This record gives sequence, C-alpha cells and structure tokens, in this order.
Amino acid sequence: MDISPLHRARYAYKPKLPAVLKSGPASIAVELGGATESIADQGALKSLFPSCYGKPVARFVSGTAGSPRGALTVGAILSGGQAPGGHNVVAGLFDGLKAGNPASVLLGFKGGPGGLVDDKVVELDAATIDQYRNTGGFDIIGSGRTKIETPEQFAKSAATARSRKLDAIVVIGGDDSNTNAALLAEYFIKEGVPCSVIGVPKTIDGDLKNDYIEASFGFDTATKTYAELIGNIERDSASARKYWHFIKLMGRSASHIALECALQCRPNVALISEEVEAKGHTLAQVTGTICDSIVARAEAGMNFGVVLIPEGLIEFIPDFKVLISELNDMMAASGEAFKAQKDDESRVAFVQKALAGASATLYASLPVDIKRQLIMDRDPHGNVQVSRIDTEKLLIAMVDKRLASLKSEGAYKGAFSAQAHFFGYEGRCAFPSNFDADYCYALGYSAFVLAANKLSGYLSSIRNLSAPTDSWIAGGVPLTMMMNMERRHGSDKPVIKKALVELDGAPFKAFAAARAAWAAGTHFRFPGAIQYYGPTDVCDRPTETLLLERPPKR
Amino acid sequence: MDISPLHRARYAYKPKLPAVLKSGPASIAVELGGATESIADQGALKSLFPSCYGKPVARFVSGTAGSPRGALTVGAILSGGQAPGGHNVVAGLFDGLKAGNPASVLLGFKGGPGGLVDDKVVELDAATIDQYRNTGGFDIIGSGRTKIETPEQFAKSAATARSRKLDAIVVIGGDDSNTNAALLAEYFIKEGVPCSVIGVPKTIDGDLKNDYIEASFGFDTATKTYAELIGNIERDSASARKYWHFIKLMGRSASHIALECALQCRPNVALISEEVEAKGHTLAQVTGTICDSIVARAEAGMNFGVVLIPEGLIEFIPDFKVLISELNDMMAASGEAFKAQKDDESRVAFVQKALAGASATLYASLPVDIKRQLIMDRDPHGNVQVSRIDTEKLLIAMVDKRLASLKSEGAYKGAFSAQAHFFGYEGRCAFPSNFDADYCYALGYSAFVLAANKLSGYLSSIRNLSAPTDSWIAGGVPLTMMMNMERRHGSDKPVIKKALVELDGAPFKAFAAARAAWAAGTHFRFPGAIQYYGPTDVCDRPTETLLLERPPKR
Repeated sequence: MDISPLHRARYAYKPKLPAVLKSGPASIAVELGGATESIADQGALKSLFPSCYGKPVARFVSGTAGSPRGALTVGAILSGGQAPGGHNVVAGLFDGLKAGNPASVLLGFKGGPGGLVDDKVVELDAATIDQYRNTGGFDIIGSGRTKIETPEQFAKSAATARSRKLDAIVVIGGDDSNTNAALLAEYFIKEGVPCSVIGVPKTIDGDLKNDYIEASFGFDTATKTYAELIGNIERDSASARKYWHFIKLMGRSASHIALECALQCRPNVALISEEVEAKGHTLAQVTGTICDSIVARAEAGMNFGVVLIPEGLIEFIPDFKVLISELNDMMAASGEAFKAQKDDESRVAFVQKALAGASATLYASLPVDIKRQLIMDRDPHGNVQVSRIDTEKLLIAMVDKRLASLKSEGAYKGAFSAQAHFFGYEGRCAFPSNFDADYCYALGYSAFVLAANKLSGYLSSIRNLSAPTDSWIAGGVPLTMMMNMERRHGSDKPVIKKALVELDGAPFKAFAAARAAWAAGTHFRFPGAIQYYGPTDVCDRPTETLLLERPPKR
Repeated sequence: MDISPLHRARYAYKPKLPAVLKSGPASIAVELGGATESIADQGALKSLFPSCYGKPVARFVSGTAGSPRGALTVGAILSGGQAPGGHNVVAGLFDGLKAGNPASVLLGFKGGPGGLVDDKVVELDAATIDQYRNTGGFDIIGSGRTKIETPEQFAKSAATARSRKLDAIVVIGGDDSNTNAALLAEYFIKEGVPCSVIGVPKTIDGDLKNDYIEASFGFDTATKTYAELIGNIERDSASARKYWHFIKLMGRSASHIALECALQCRPNVALISEEVEAKGHTLAQVTGTICDSIVARAEAGMNFGVVLIPEGLIEFIPDFKVLISELNDMMAASGEAFKAQKDDESRVAFVQKALAGASATLYASLPVDIKRQLIMDRDPHGNVQVSRIDTEKLLIAMVDKRLASLKSEGAYKGAFSAQAHFFGYEGRCAFPSNFDADYCYALGYSAFVLAANKLSGYLSSIRNLSAPTDSWIAGGVPLTMMMNMERRHGSDKPVIKKALVELDGAPFKAFAAARAAWAAGTHFRFPGAIQYYGPTDVCDRPTETLLLERPPKR
C-alpha cells in the first residue's frame, strides 16, 4: 500500500506507557479499594446490578501478578462515532495480551456491537495491528450504533461469547455504549457466561468524564484539529478584515469542544449551550451577545471576527424549545387544515396565526428560510427536525436583521459580511496526537490487565493525565459507580451520567473571565497543526480543559 | 502576547536558503541573459511597455556584487487573498536589505495597493518582523484588492514613491497584481521616478506558473491543509461506511488545488473544471460520473465515498453557462411580465415556459431550491450570482435525483446519504510549511537583490524547487515575458497568462491514469497534519504537482 510519509512515520511511534505498565504483565499487581456506591439512585441500581454494583476501584501497582496466566481470548468492539486513538486502544490491548501469553487471541467484532450479536468476527494478528498503530479512524474493524437491548440480542451476545470461548469483551465507546457494557456484564454473570465485559471511555465530545475519568479519548486530537482550523480562520479574518466567521462545532449536547476551542483560540464570541440554558437566554439574547461584539468592534474599525457555536445550541435555547414543541403539537392537532394550505407562503401565514405569545413573536422574528424549514422538514413522526437546522446560518440571519435595525437607529455604522463553517468530520479520524496515542494505548493495555484479572463491569481508567506519562495512574473503575437513573422514552433507565460543561468549573470560569476582552479586542491565538515531532511543549501538551480541571501537581 | 507553543517554536525556525544567497549580498553577482519575448502579442506588448519589454532574465551567481551599495528604502505591498508565507517574503526582504546595509529601511504599505496610492505606510523594524517570522496571514500590514488603474492612482503612486524616496516597491500578489506591477514599473520609468517595481508570485490557487515560475507560494501549505482535512474525512467515511462526502475546494478558475488534493488523497471522484470544459461535459454528464462511482461501490457493499469539487466548476459546464446567459437575457427582456408573477412557484413556472431547447431541459432537471436561487438571487445588474451557488449541494441534489431514478429501474440498490463541505479560508493563513517558509524567504531575499541591482519590472524567481534548498536557482524574470493580450471588459489588456490545469500535463495524466481504480475501490491516502519537525520526507516534501511537473534530477 502506498501510504503518506506521515502515515509511514507514525507506524514507528512507540506510545509512552505509565511506569507501572512498562515492565509487563507479570509485574503488575491489582490493588482493590473498598466497596463503592453509584453517584445517585443507589437502591434502584443495586437491584438492577445485583452482581456488579458496588465493586471496588482497581489500581495497578508494581508487584507480582496474582495468578499464573493462561492464554486469553478477548473480543474488541468499536462503538459509535469515530474518535482518534481507537486503533491504539486495540493495539495496546493486543500487545498486553501477547505480552501476557503469546498464545492469547484478540478478535475484532465487525461494525460495532451488532458484530457481537451476529457473531461477525475477525482475528486481529500482529500484521494487521501493525497497519493501524497510531492512525486515526475505526476502519480496522468498523464501528456501529446498535444498542444491545432486547432479550434476544442479549441471548445472542451470550451465545457468541460462549461459542468463541471469550474471556473478555472490551467495548470502546461513549456513555451509552458503556452503560450497555455494564448491562452486558451483569447479564453474563447472571447467565453464568464466564466472560468479563470491560469498557473504554471514548468520545470526541468530552462528555464522558467524572472523578475517575479525567478525559475521554479523542477529545484532545479532535479539539486540536478544530483549533488549528479556527486559528487559521482567525488569522485570515484579521488579515482580510472584512468577514465575520460563524463556526459551528460538532458535539450534540455538551459544549466541551466549543469551550476548549475557545480557550485555545480566543475568538470574539463563543456560545456555551449550558450557560444559555442555565440563564434562560432567548434567541434574541443570544443574537444580542453576538451583536454587542460586532457593534463594539465596528466602532474600533474592526468589521471582522470569529464566533464559535456548539452544534447542540438550538436545543438549549428555552424559547426555541417551546416553539418547537408548540409546532409539533399544532401540526399533530390541525393536520388537515394545515395540509389544505396550497403553498409555502400561506403555510407560513397559517402557522404564524395559530401561534400565540412568545412563540408567535419568536416565529415572526425568524428568517423566512427557517420559518419554512420549521414547518416543512419533519421526521417520520411529523416532528420538526431540529438537528437539520443550520444554527450558524440561522444566527447569521438573525444578526444581520438586528444590525439592520441598529443601523437604522444610528447605533451601528459598520459593514457586516459573514461566512459559515461547520467542523466535525474533519477531526474525528485525524492521526491521534501523541497524548491520545499514549493515552489510548495505556487504556487498551489496562483493559487487558482488567481482563487478565477477571474483573468485569469495569471501565479502563488512566489518571493523573496532566502529569508526564510516566506518572499516569492505571486501573479500572466499576461502571455502576458513574451511574444514576434517568427518564428515557417514558421509563427510568440506568445510565452513566453525561458530563455537561459546569459553569462553576475551572475551564468555564477561565473563559468567562477573559471573554469581555476577547469580544472587544483582537486576542486571537493560533494553535497551528497538531505536531507529532519537535519540542515537547508543542507535541505533548494536553488540552486546556484538562490542564485547568487537573492542574499539574508541582 | 500569550501565543501558542507552536507559534513560539516557529519564531525560532531559520529558513533554509539557496546556496547562492547564503554568503550575503556582497557575494551575489547578477548574470543577465539575452533579450526576451512575451509569450504572445509581442508587437502590442512592445508598444505598451517600451522600456520594460524584452529585458533579460536575471540569474544570481556567486561573485562580487557589481557596485558599492548605499542604503535603500523599499516598500512592500501585500495584494489580494492571503497565502501562507507572505510574512516570510517580507522577512527575507528585510534581512536582505539589512545585510546589504544596516541603514536600509523597509516600509510596509497598509491594506494592499491602496496603501501606496494613499501613502498609508508603516516602518517595519526588526522587532516587528520578528513577531511575524514563519507565521501565516497577511496581518503584518494587511492586504487589499485595489487595482491601480486610473491616471490619478498612477500619479498618486508616483508621488508616494517620490516623497518616500523609495528605491523599490515589492508587490506580493497574484497574476492580476503582478500585471499591475508591470504597468507601474513602466509608468515609473516613463515619468522618471527612480523606483524599481518588483513582483513576487503569490496565490494558493497555483495558477501563476510558467516556464520560469515553478509554483506560486502558498499553494504548498494550503493544499497540504486541505489534504489533511480530506484525508481525515476519507478515513471517517471508510470507518462509518455510511456517508458520501462532497467537498468543494477554493480556487475560482483553475482546478490545481482539487487536482493536487486528489493526488494526495486519492478520493473516489475528483472533478477538474478544465476537463469538463474541454470535453463539453453537461451537468447531467458530470452527475453521471459521480453516480457511476456510487453505483459501482454500492454493488461492492460500499455506500460511502469522497468527491472533490473545484470551486469554479459550475462556470466551466457548457450547458450551465448557456442557461445562465439565457436567464440573464430573459430577465433583462421580460422584466415586467416576470415581476408580475406573484410567488416563487409561478416565477419558476414562468421561467420554465420561457426557456427552450437544452436550457429548458436543464432547468427542468434542477432541484427546486436551485431553480428558485437562479431567478431570485441577482446582482445589482440583474445577473444571476453564479458564485453564490453551492455547487457541492447542487451536485448532491442532482445525484440524489439520478440515483432515485436508477433505483426505480433496478440499476441501483444502495443507500445514499451525503455531507457537504467547503474548504478555503481554513488553508490561506496556516503557518507556512517548511517548503513555503523557505521558498518565501528566498523570494523576499531575491526581491532585495533585484532592487539592489536596480532591476525593475521583474518577478522574483526561485527555481529547481523539487531539489534540496541548497540547489535552488535564484534570480528574476521580466514580467513582460509572461504576458499576452486578453479581452477584458470589451478591450484588449496586457495580462500575465493564467495557468490552468493542462490536460496533457504530468499531474493530470497521473490522476487520469489512476482514477478508475479510485472510483471503484477504496484507495484513500491520509496525509495528516502539516509537520514542521521530524523526518525530512514528512516535513520538506513539496507538492505532488511540483514533483510530477519538475521531476527531481538524479
């Protein structure tokens, strides 16, 4: 295969391991803590997870491994959206297995959890693994979004585990996939399937995070890739001095990506969904925040700037949420009368008339394209497809309208011209940064140690991530410890709690303290492309979020 | 200023100079060749450029500089769109000037050529220059698109040159800006203004290229940035296996960027505007090219892929060009009857009825949004705003429609879901690659040598670019040598000929030979982020276009 020079060079990279994992499986002992509790709903979770609930935290220490090790058979699953470093988790798992016993076997389930259900499997040998070391993507075995939830799916998963004689299954996924891993672990114990289930915290969104999980893998590389592009656009904006760039960033619910990119790049405005929701900001207020910066900068002769927008923003704006829900109800109630309208214009008028109060005002304030989209673009259940709304373009249109009105009042004299961008797919499969390459390899290696010690229902855990690799702490955290009960589709379900941006957390506070200066002046910061070679502070620095949340110990 | 770690590290980079420039101004002699001719229209150009026409090519060689050097005052102008490396041209020029005589002064004209006309100037001292070495952007003095064309503008430029006692002006720009530089050089000689005018070949589009200019600066960095993103998206596509990504790439007329990115990344389809025009491909045929790949891949179970689209494509599709021109004529002719239509639907119907032949068929085949856009979105002259059409979205809609019809015929059984992207601003202000950092610094240094030797009407030229920096050839090429006469706005104008993709050139031929395999199979190549440190083949490799056009000598 004719691969790129960087691709070839990355094969040769040796991930840096925490000291405790360096000397090999025979020298790794497991230290278990006391019984644990879930973060909430202890009673309900205890009864749902009679076997897995309350297990101790596991920490790896130098020592002699407890028991003689036979060969293991382990199956790996890549679940959900791609995140840089997934291949290194697999490589770390493989190298651990082989170091433990050369006869051990690593299987890969193809196309996500569905591969386990349907027994679609491929053996991953050394030659295959070597083609994927330190590369991006999940293409080694593919990924998928199947959720194992029906009794039949659980039974089929157990059948695969039995027929393949699996000692462990490693699920590399986000909060949902790891919740699923916990259920599977419990099910296997109940059914007497002698197969551990171990999770690995993956997601570029950064929302799988808690006291024991300092960061999900992929967040580092993805945000560095987006920050490269944002910085380049900032520099373009400051050079051309004629455009406002509205940049939407992937990350459905949480705004960690937007916040990290803001800390990296210092744009003029960065919207944080969690703040908008907490403060109950209306769409008009959000528009106002942006316009304030535009007006102030125009007065200083700067008709340019950069705005960051988290992908999920629109669903966090309270008045917009109400409008959507009223539109859904209205369409369901007055379907026939609505259908009788003969063109777009009369449909828009019909809807406008049927709405009342704040929703009527909000709908009236929207650009015509969005008005149309809100009533025409429905999902199979007839609901508005909120995720299809181009929030960055909606905001540009709202800002444009507001500026025109400010101009007519004499309160704005600038020129406004905007460009819209959306970054997401650009960062999910980048070559992992050294941080993610090291972190993922250690996560995979630790998943092996958990498997070798027959620990089930655990999430592979590497901590002290803002310190040099050598001092990283490796172990496993019981999955139930991160869970609570949440209402999903009308019933209470056990779930790993999603970590949203905390408004009293250090990253948000650092941002909040600086943003007034960024909005008025030009404080752009240009991170540049991810570097894999060269000075340590350029190549191995973790995210600003991590450094602020876990300041390195002196 | 709190800058990023890479930003700080790049300050320390020392651009590699060609051997001939290494030992400083006192050891650089100029070797002049014989008289030259323009590429066409020699008579017309000779009469337009009585002083500058036919000057010899200049080559720098080791030797003793011809004359003792006094201090020089030189003014720099950044013209047109940003390209990575512009700051290094300024730095190379500055370092050359100061090495020649520490009393020399470098001025920067602010905001493009308009800064010369209006005498908006700033002195660039060592402290300022040091803040911009090896960085992207044009923000050191800003850029602009003013064209110096009226007698008044020429007179004001001359006045600035006189009052500032300029020995030379260095215009860093594309084909238009350098044409402008040639006119200015001629004007200054005619008017007895003792100021050389020297150009530097800049443009990410790569269309300022000929026998003496092997590449314009910025093309290397910009295409590497786009290729990073395209490769990441390819890997995402091959991992998720569910999306076709349609990626539009900046570059108005020429498709060099799309071609270079195709050679780097091996997408399933890359459209080349020059080929579409040469072969007279209709929009239906272009759609067919994409669908062929989609259908073939779907049969092999691959419902995913990547398509590259040059920004200017739509204007190269013959039947679309005819449609646009007929629409423009029609609107001008039947304005009142058209205005009488009361809504979008009747306007579309009105236009459909008024069209005939191929244009009627083409218009009928377009998605409704585009039909609407073509008649509603007009410039102040009432013409269709072709540049506003989202070609990538148009093609997705056309492909979707065609696939539905193929599906109904049983000729396609796959699933088609698409994502649209546009990359342009992301690459124009990246930190220059080592290649662009070195190339630009050498171009700037050479511009100084040309100025010191009182050569006017020249383009700074560095050749043998696919060889190691040491063997690069430095000198200057007379601007008139690259010119011909072209019809612009109804009259014949002298212009530097724009270099479009040549269908019998090595880069296109390499692409054409491989593309059938890329369309059917998955041969994606992942270049990764630009690296500034690390292995030479990773960090210093020039573009595939350059390597194919100028194969390194053995």
